Amino acid sequence: MIPSIRRDVPKSQLRGYIIANKGSKHNFFPSSPSGTRRVSISFQMSSDDKCLFCAIVKGAIPAFKVYETEHTLAFLDISPVSEGHTQVIPKYHARTLGDMPDEYLADIGPALKKVAAATGAEQYNVLQNNGKLAFQVRTSHVDHVHFHIIPKTTPQDGLVLDVDASWPARQADKEKLVATAEKMRSRI
Amino acid sequence: MIPSIRRDVPKSQLRGYIIANKGSKHNFFPSSPSGTRRVSISFQMSSDDKCLFCAIVKGAIPAFKVYETEHTLAFLDISPVSEGHTQVIPKYHARTLGDMPDEYLADIGPALKKVAAATGAEQYNVLQNNGKLAFQVRTSHVDHVHFHIIPKTTPQDGLVLDVDASWPARQADKEKLVATAEKMRSRI
Repeated sequence: MIPSIRRDVPKSQLRGYIIANKGSKHNFFPSSPSGTRRVSISFQMSSDDKCLFCAIVKGAIPAFKVYETEHTLAFLDISPVSEGHTQVIPKYHARTLGDMPDEYLADIGPALKKVAAATGAEQYNVLQNNGKLAFQVRTSHVDHVHFHIIPKTTPQDGLVLDVDASWPARQADKEKLVATAEKMRSRI
Repeated sequence: MIPSIRRDVPKSQLRGYIIANKGSKHNFFPSSPSGTRRVSISFQMSSDDKCLFCAIVKGAIPAFKVYETEHTLAFLDISPVSEGHTQVIPKYHARTLGDMPDEYLADIGPALKKVAAATGAEQYNVLQNNGKLAFQVRTSHVDHVHFHIIPKTTPQDGLVLDVDASWPARQADKEKLVATAEKMRSRI
């Protein structure tokens, strides 16, 4: 049986894309002979057939692409927090940075720079969230590494940090820092 | 005249480091014959003699280093928002991503992965701020590209986003997205 995007990709991920494309002059979804929008997806090992971003990489779901390399794809966030809000993703399925091959991470750095410049914003945030507690679900519903490029042109738009609540910095205990650094070095 | 860190590096940057090293058993600052802590700094073109992070790269100011390559240095934030909060920086002075050579950005991607893994945290945020409005000053006082690796182990620690206030997402207007994507592609 040919898999269907509507079945395989969680509705929570797909809904926004259907809404965004509603009433479009473009036929984003290839239609089957019966007129339903079912498409066939086949993925490589580095893809996940339940992942919206893998479907975008594959071309099975459309996106507003702005930049692409062999390893990286950048496309607009369809629920932007500011104009030009872009997702820059590796063309490899992994939930967090820790599972991403280095060649993809090496490629994405220069891509972040190019995409940030293309937004035209002089000020912007780059945010990459790993895990539900770290807002990976809140800021998108996709378990596929993605770097948000978020133009910041007004205090109200883009990423909004409450100067006190969002950044609970505290005076460091020096001995604790020494121990933490040693522990981290031993893990690398 | 030999430049002094205390004179050249803004006090707002240096203060935390002096406090962190106060009472240290280690002699972080080389002393002059007179016992004052004045050190000589000389920088390459890619350095800024008023930049705290350039001084750390140069070794003129100490840091709790956790990882280093030819192009990248990672060290603990001394005002952490969670344990293991680390700064990963290119060894090149530029205020924003847009001014950073690609070779540094290519190197920093795999470094982010290594450092994140070394924190031991399963969930974490990677945040890189460009410009005062985008909190580059709030989250540090340093105009030198830096990626925060911020472990997230509790809702209160680390980066804290208010689910509504911090992320003003809105339904996208499709025609606007088409125009934005075209504009951005034309700039790359």
